Amino acid sequence: MDHQWTARPKPDRVEWLERRLEFSNYASNRDFLDRLNDFCEQQGRFPDISFGRTYVNITLRSENEGSPISEEDYAFATSIDGLI
Amino acid sequence: MDHQWTARPKPDRVEWLERRLEFSNYASNRDFLDRLNDFCEQQGRFPDISFGRTYVNITLRSENEGSPISEEDYAFATSIDGLI
Repeated sequence: MDHQWTARPKPDRVEWLERRLEFSNYASNRDFLDRLNDFCEQQGRFPDISFGRTYVNITLRSENEGSPISEEDYAFATSIDGLI
Repeated sequence: MDHQWTARPKPDRVEWLERRLEFSNYASNRDFLDRLNDFCEQQGRFPDISFGRTYVNITLRSENEGSPISEEDYAFATSIDGLI
């Protein structure tokens, strides 16, 4: 698991993972965002994403509301790291 | 000005505009998001946007941090309405 992801709300009770990515310019930001969207569409998995000109925040919740993050969720987060 | 935008923090002191859009499916959500991104890129104007599978939230701040929303900002918001 890449340490860039933050486990929330608490390390011993993880219900979602968060990561913030910052890019040097809009073009790289938009390129990552488009590839992330394509990947999520392909996986049929839709994290909450917020972005501006040069940042992307990703919030990955468990697929079963309120249940803890699973190995599968961690694997999905690691796949997203592979898009950077 | 389309009433769907909410003036924040207060109607008599507007520093940003917010709008939430919901779509019936992912495809329409993604289509709008891509057109919104293209339009923002074309205008060189980058609101804070958050989205999930079937929603898009747009937060439009004044271009000059802390100053009130201008007529130009309202016009930009109205142009975004035209993309829906």
